[in-house]
Amino acid sequence: MAQKPSIPKGTRDFSPVEVAKRNYIFSTIKTNFEKFGFQPIETPSFENSETLMGKYGEEGDRLIFKILNSGNFFYNKKSKIEIPESIEELQINSAETISIEQRIELNKFTGKISEKALRYDLTVPFARYVVQHQNEIEFPFKRYQIQPVWRADNPQKGRFREFFQCDADVVGSNSLWQEVELAQLYDSVFSQLGLNGVTIKINNRKILSGIAEVIGASDKLIDFTVALDKLDKIGEEGVKKEMLEKGISESAIEKVQPLFSFTGTISEKITKLGDLLASSEEGMKGVEELLFICDNVNEIGLQTATLDLDVTLARGLNYYTGAIFEVSAPKEVKMGSIGGGGRYDDLTGIFGLKNMSGVGISFGLDRIALVIEELGLFPETVTETSKALFLNFGLEEAKYAMKAVAKLRQVGIKVEMYPDATKIGKQFQHADKRGIPFAVIVGEEEMRNNQFGIKNLASGEQEKVDFEVLLNKLQENK
Amino acid sequence: MAQKPSIPKGTRDFSPVEVAKRNYIFSTIKTNFEKFGFQPIETPSFENSETLMGKYGEEGDRLIFKILNSGNFFYNKKSKIEIPESIEELQINSAETISIEQRIELNKFTGKISEKALRYDLTVPFARYVVQHQNEIEFPFKRYQIQPVWRADNPQKGRFREFFQCDADVVGSNSLWQEVELAQLYDSVFSQLGLNGVTIKINNRKILSGIAEVIGASDKLIDFTVALDKLDKIGEEGVKKEMLEKGISESAIEKVQPLFSFTGTISEKITKLGDLLASSEEGMKGVEELLFICDNVNEIGLQTATLDLDVTLARGLNYYTGAIFEVSAPKEVKMGSIGGGGRYDDLTGIFGLKNMSGVGISFGLDRIALVIEELGLFPETVTETSKALFLNFGLEEAKYAMKAVAKLRQVGIKVEMYPDATKIGKQFQHADKRGIPFAVIVGEEEMRNNQFGIKNLASGEQEKVDFEVLLNKLQENK
Repeated sequence: MAQKPSIPKGTRDFSPVEVAKRNYIFSTIKTNFEKFGFQPIETPSFENSETLMGKYGEEGDRLIFKILNSGNFFYNKKSKIEIPESIEELQINSAETISIEQRIELNKFTGKISEKALRYDLTVPFARYVVQHQNEIEFPFKRYQIQPVWRADNPQKGRFREFFQCDADVVGSNSLWQEVELAQLYDSVFSQLGLNGVTIKINNRKILSGIAEVIGASDKLIDFTVALDKLDKIGEEGVKKEMLEKGISESAIEKVQPLFSFTGTISEKITKLGDLLASSEEGMKGVEELLFICDNVNEIGLQTATLDLDVTLARGLNYYTGAIFEVSAPKEVKMGSIGGGGRYDDLTGIFGLKNMSGVGISFGLDRIALVIEELGLFPETVTETSKALFLNFGLEEAKYAMKAVAKLRQVGIKVEMYPDATKIGKQFQHADKRGIPFAVIVGEEEMRNNQFGIKNLASGEQEKVDFEVLLNKLQENK
Repeated sequence: MAQKPSIPKGTRDFSPVEVAKRNYIFSTIKTNFEKFGFQPIETPSFENSETLMGKYGEEGDRLIFKILNSGNFFYNKKSKIEIPESIEELQINSAETISIEQRIELNKFTGKISEKALRYDLTVPFARYVVQHQNEIEFPFKRYQIQPVWRADNPQKGRFREFFQCDADVVGSNSLWQEVELAQLYDSVFSQLGLNGVTIKINNRKILSGIAEVIGASDKLIDFTVALDKLDKIGEEGVKKEMLEKGISESAIEKVQPLFSFTGTISEKITKLGDLLASSEEGMKGVEELLFICDNVNEIGLQTATLDLDVTLARGLNYYTGAIFEVSAPKEVKMGSIGGGGRYDDLTGIFGLKNMSGVGISFGLDRIALVIEELGLFPETVTETSKALFLNFGLEEAKYAMKAVAKLRQVGIKVEMYPDATKIGKQFQHADKRGIPFAVIVGEEEMRNNQFGIKNLASGEQEKVDFEVLLNKLQENK
C-alpha cells in the first residue's frame, strides 16, 4: 500500500489531547448523572435489524448502517442465498430509476445477506433493554448510557457518521418532579463545566396540540409546529406564508398572532397561554404541567443556567407527548442546541410493553466540546501527561533511574524514563514537545551521591535533591 | 412485535451492576497506563475495508464484519451495481461447494456493496493511525487504547462477537527497557486490582527461531512451535508425536529433549538455553534479550506478580519478532491467559512506514472480570448507587425535600427523591431493592421543625436531624 492510509468519511481519529478533552466532558456528565441517581447500562453496538427498522421513519431506516451476515456472507455455510432474478435485470445506475416494486424485491435480498444493524440512537436500544429485562429491573428505572451511535448521513461540519450520545432517562413514572430534576441536571453539568449562561428552553407537546385545537387545525398539527419552529430563522412573515401554503386558514393564523411576539417572564408567558388555550382541555393540561415544572425549578433555583419557555420549540414531535427540552449555548457562541429531550408516554410500546412513560435528556458531546474550546474553558490539567521525564544517560544510570521511577509510580505519580540513551538534547526536546514539566537528570555524580537532578523545563531552574524531596516536588501538583 | 425482543448472538447487554464492575477494571487499567506515561487515542469503529483485509490471515478476513454501503446500498445514488452473472448461476447452498474462482467473483461483488468493516483488533488501526499521523506524533509514542472490537467468531462461553480490548503499545524505539516496563505495568495493574499471584510468562521469538535452527528445522519453525506450545495440554509424548507427523526428524527432536523438562529459576533456565543455543547467532541474541529483561525486572522488583520464562510460549508467532508475553491467572482459578503481548519489529510496514519497532501488551477484560468475580475481589463501593432516598409524602413535603436534595447534590452527594407520592412501604422497598443505605423522611412534623428523619435501612436505626447533620452523615462514606 503506497498511498497513505485514510479513514472512512464522517469518522474521526482522536489524538491524546482530543481524547483527554472529551473524557473531561464525559466524566463531568457521568459524575452528575450519578449524583442524580442515574445508573449506567450498555447495549451492543449492533442490534437485530428488526429491532431498529421502522422506528425512525423512512429517512431513518435509510440511514441505518447494515452489517453483512457472518463477516463474509458468501462464506456462511448456513445461508442459502438465492439472488432474485429481478436484481440481475435491473441495471441499477441511479436510485431514482428504481421503482418501489424493485426496491421491495431488492430489500428481500438485503434481508438475506444482512440481519444486524449498527445502533442509530440510544433510545430504541434502551426501550428494547427495558422490555427484555423487565423482570430484573426495579422501576422507576433511572438509566444513563454513554455510547457511540452510527448514521449513514452525509457528513458535514459538525455532523459525523460515528458520534457519541450521552442520554439520561427515567422510565416507569409520570411524576413531573423528573422534569424538574432534568432541568437541574442540565444546570448542574454545565455549571460544573464552567459553561455559564446556557438557556434551558422548555415547551410541552400538549401546548402545541392545544394551539392547533383552538385554531381548528388539529389535523395540521405537524405542519403547524414545523412552520412555527422556524420563527427564529424565517421570521413572522415567513412562518405565516408557510402556514398558508400548508392549508392553514388566515383566520386560524390570526388567532395565534400572540405567539409571534411572545415575550415576558415565564409566568407572564404561561398566563398568556392560559388565556389562549382556555377552551382546550389538552392545552390547559400542558399549561398546568409547565406551571408545575417552571415554578419548582425557579423556587429551588438553578446555579448558572436560565430556564425559558419557548412555544416554538417542537423537536421530535412525533415522539414526545409532554415536556420538550432544548438547551442553547451562551449567546456569545454561535452554535445550535447543545442538548435536548422530553417526555414520551409510551416508550416501550413498540416492543409490546404498554403504559411505560419515559422522560429523558441528551447531551451533545461534540458541540459542547466545540463551545468549551471556543470559550477556553478546558482546565489546563486536563491535557497534562507525565509529571517528569527521567533522562537516559546509559545502562547503569538507567538502572538507577528506573528504580526511582518504579517507586514514584507506586505512589501514583506519572513519570517516564526516555527508553534510549540518545543525545541529551533530543531527550530534552522530547520532554518539551510532550509538555512534560520536569526533567530528572541522573548522571554518575548523582548516582554516587544518591541524588537526582531535577530541572523545571519552564523556568530552567535546576537543583540536586534526594529521593524524598524529588517525590514531594512531583507530588505537589499531582 | 409480540415476541420479546432479543439481541444478536455473541453480544451482551450490561446491567448497572455489570457496568460498574467493568468500569472499575477499565479505570484501574487506565490509571496505570497513564502512570506509565501512555496516552489515549481513539480510532473509528469502522475502517476502510482495505485497511483491515489481508492483515489477519485468511481466517481473520472471514471473521471481519463488513458493513453495507451507505446504510442501504440499493438506495445509494452513486453506486453502479452490476451483479456478476456467475452469482446468479451459483446455487450456493454450502461454502464448501464454492470454488476459489467463484469466491473471487463473489468477493468482487462484496467489494461493490461494502467498503467498510468493523475493527477486528486495536493493533492494525493503531498502525494505520501512526502512519497517517506520523508528522504530528512525537516518537517514541506510548499510546493506549480501550475500545470494543468485533469478530464474526462462533460464540462460546467467554468468547463474544463484541468485546473490549485494552492495549498499551510503544512505537519508535528498540529499547528493551520497554519490555521491562511492560512487565511492571502488568504487575502494577493486577496488584492494584488485588489480584495477587499472577504469573507473567515471557519468551522470545529469537529463542524459538534459534532452537529450530540448531535442530536443523528452521523451515518448520511454525509447525515446531505450534507443537511445543501444546506441551501443557498434550504432554511430552503428544508433542513429539505431532512433531514427527509434521516431518521433524527424530534426531532433531532428540536435541530439544531438555525443553520437555525445563525447570529451575529464570537464571538457570537462561543458562540452559545459552548452552543449547550456543551455535545460533539469533538464538544467542534472544538469550541476551531475555537476560536483560529478566535481570532488570527482578532487580527492580515486582509487587505481587511472578516473572517466569516459558520456552513453549509462542502466541501470535507470525507477528512477534522479539519478546513474547502472556499472563496467567492465579493458580486457584481455572482460566486461560488474562493478558498477552510482545515485540513486533515492523508494526507500520504494512502501511508503508518502515523501521518502526513496536512493543505492547493487552489486558483481557472479560476474563479478568470473571477472575475478580470468582475470587470476590470487587470492592463493595464499586456497585454503590445513591446514598439516600428521600421519601415522597406529597406535594409540599416533596418541595421541601427537593430543596435539600439539590443542596446535597451541589456538594457532590448522590441522592434521590422517589418521584411519586405512593405508599411509603413501596418506597422503602424501592430503596431496599436498589441497595440504597439510607431513607430520608420528611413529613409535616419534620417540615415544621426544619428537620429530616434519617433511617439506616440496614440497622433500622432512625433519628431526626437538621440539615447540617444530615449532610455530614451522608458525606461520611461518600
